[in-house]
Amino acid sequence: MDDENLEFSVEAYSAVSWNAGMLTLLDQRKLPKEINYLDYDSAIAVAVAIKDMVVRGAPAIGIAGAYAVVLAARSAWQEAEESWREKIEGDIHKLATARPTAVNLNWAIAEMRKLFDSIEGEPETALLELAQRIHSKDIAANHEMGRLGAELITANSQIITHCNAGALATGGYGTALGVIKTAFKNGSIKNVFSSETRPWFQGARLTSWELQQAQIPVTVVIDSAIASVMINNKIAWLIVGSDRIAANGDVANKIGTYCHAISAYYHGVKVMIVAPSSTVDMEVESGAYIPIENRGKEEVTNFKTTRIAPNDIEAINPGFDITPAKLIDVIVTEKGIVHNPDTKKMLALFG
Amino acid sequence: MDDENLEFSVEAYSAVSWNAGMLTLLDQRKLPKEINYLDYDSAIAVAVAIKDMVVRGAPAIGIAGAYAVVLAARSAWQEAEESWREKIEGDIHKLATARPTAVNLNWAIAEMRKLFDSIEGEPETALLELAQRIHSKDIAANHEMGRLGAELITANSQIITHCNAGALATGGYGTALGVIKTAFKNGSIKNVFSSETRPWFQGARLTSWELQQAQIPVTVVIDSAIASVMINNKIAWLIVGSDRIAANGDVANKIGTYCHAISAYYHGVKVMIVAPSSTVDMEVESGAYIPIENRGKEEVTNFKTTRIAPNDIEAINPGFDITPAKLIDVIVTEKGIVHNPDTKKMLALFG
Repeated sequence: MDDENLEFSVEAYSAVSWNAGMLTLLDQRKLPKEINYLDYDSAIAVAVAIKDMVVRGAPAIGIAGAYAVVLAARSAWQEAEESWREKIEGDIHKLATARPTAVNLNWAIAEMRKLFDSIEGEPETALLELAQRIHSKDIAANHEMGRLGAELITANSQIITHCNAGALATGGYGTALGVIKTAFKNGSIKNVFSSETRPWFQGARLTSWELQQAQIPVTVVIDSAIASVMINNKIAWLIVGSDRIAANGDVANKIGTYCHAISAYYHGVKVMIVAPSSTVDMEVESGAYIPIENRGKEEVTNFKTTRIAPNDIEAINPGFDITPAKLIDVIVTEKGIVHNPDTKKMLALFG
Repeated sequence: MDDENLEFSVEAYSAVSWNAGMLTLLDQRKLPKEINYLDYDSAIAVAVAIKDMVVRGAPAIGIAGAYAVVLAARSAWQEAEESWREKIEGDIHKLATARPTAVNLNWAIAEMRKLFDSIEGEPETALLELAQRIHSKDIAANHEMGRLGAELITANSQIITHCNAGALATGGYGTALGVIKTAFKNGSIKNVFSSETRPWFQGARLTSWELQQAQIPVTVVIDSAIASVMINNKIAWLIVGSDRIAANGDVANKIGTYCHAISAYYHGVKVMIVAPSSTVDMEVESGAYIPIENRGKEEVTNFKTTRIAPNDIEAINPGFDITPAKLIDVIVTEKGIVHNPDTKKMLALFG
């Protein structure tokens, strides 16, 4: 890591890192029980890891994708030298289609691709430098969002967050959890309720663990108890990340976000979305046009290998939902904050 | 079972039954994987079974409680003959406090107790007759509620239900699922979405199984996806049971009901509560005075014996929540339907 990264590194773990010519991913399926790092030297294997949720979280997937392009380019150069630009396309296609909802993966691949034409000779060195710059800029963006978002949080606040939008979901520090970490340093956080986030338990497994590491008070609660938590506690903010933000301010995020945002609206709890500008997709007019990933029903009907539901039962497993802009109070990005988002305000900042 | 029961019995299983002088409970912790019946000859063991959720569902707990009073009376008579009325109180106290939120348990015990003074000699015969009458009246009430509720459901309806308010939660047939079963026979049901109901998975395990047995189309979905299901499908009704209904029409039910009711309100989905009049507690002015059971946090942090969350993490596990009357369209009981419930309308039917 370069100095800029080192300055910011506060976690003893890293979801995504580059070590000795390989991409290292912290296997998030095993957390918090096992801290297990896996090394990848092929882009296809990274695509599978993204699909299988070894790495998850839109910004972290984007960074992993950028490093995977480095691996793909190395392999394409070894196979075809000067024709690497044609040879790499198969791998890039598999990477780009690994998961459909988060836009950061395609954003990162597009950033990497912009460099292709200017490269002379072997591509790995130049592409690695860019991937590392994408990575360190993500960390810096998280700290800037942390600063901006924390300014909105008053003393002694109780917060609800959903899924994991922390260091584990990003290059480091986190988006929603970055805001919470900075606000905690400012002395503004009394407690964080982490909704467990079925079916993958990112809240119960990852957010609780990450906040515990940071010594921030956290209480795990089942997803459907969030409305009950809101009426029985003074909650200042629902703070979450995002996988894609449409031009009108509609937000795709982990399934359940829409549910929690409706409860927040009903109880007068404010809603903060925290995401780097790479999550904003101005090509997409509204949330209605964001593709929602439908994952396998066995993630709902089974717990790991243990069957929960009867055999042959129908189940649906949408990975994400759309929270309409009208339910959102602020979108915090490293470029600034959009209050009560709409197309005009989004265009002003991201147009 | 008497003829009245036989006439109504449609399920091949029974949550609660009396066989050869013992209370038989279907172990609902093992469903749908194992169909395992447990026999009880002591009231204390039944109290433990209620606490441990071998049997669950407010009306089923009430019926199990009535049969447990028979067991307690037999044991008290064996120990103390004519002093059985004093001797029985210890067992009754343990039974009555097994779970606090559902009122049906205390209602059934109170019904049984009304008979005590008039009994001459050994109490078992008379008390068993009353327990069986409570049981068969519950089944009859469910069929009547099924008839009344189903009249409100128009053709081709899609329904959401939460937790399990079926044959497994009652003497037989079910409350919310009784309405759904009758409406299905009427040809009005297109599909039922069953929210999985963390942390015990009553929706994924029990409701899906019960509807599958009845050949009613059912789709399991995680709890936090219910808002997403509502916006992406035309849903006619959210139909659920209740553990206690206050005098003003506020409803205590399985945690998540309030969450789903808020989503229903936001999406214009109607909300139907189905519960026998034994669930109505006119002594309790509003939901604010209904005791909410807080269960052990390990039910949230673990899946059976597998740890999900980090060690030493805080968690809360409220078993129920309160849905305010203003979010409820109809309360269906065997005595009739209350539309847009309030204290005046509740008094008119239950005063």
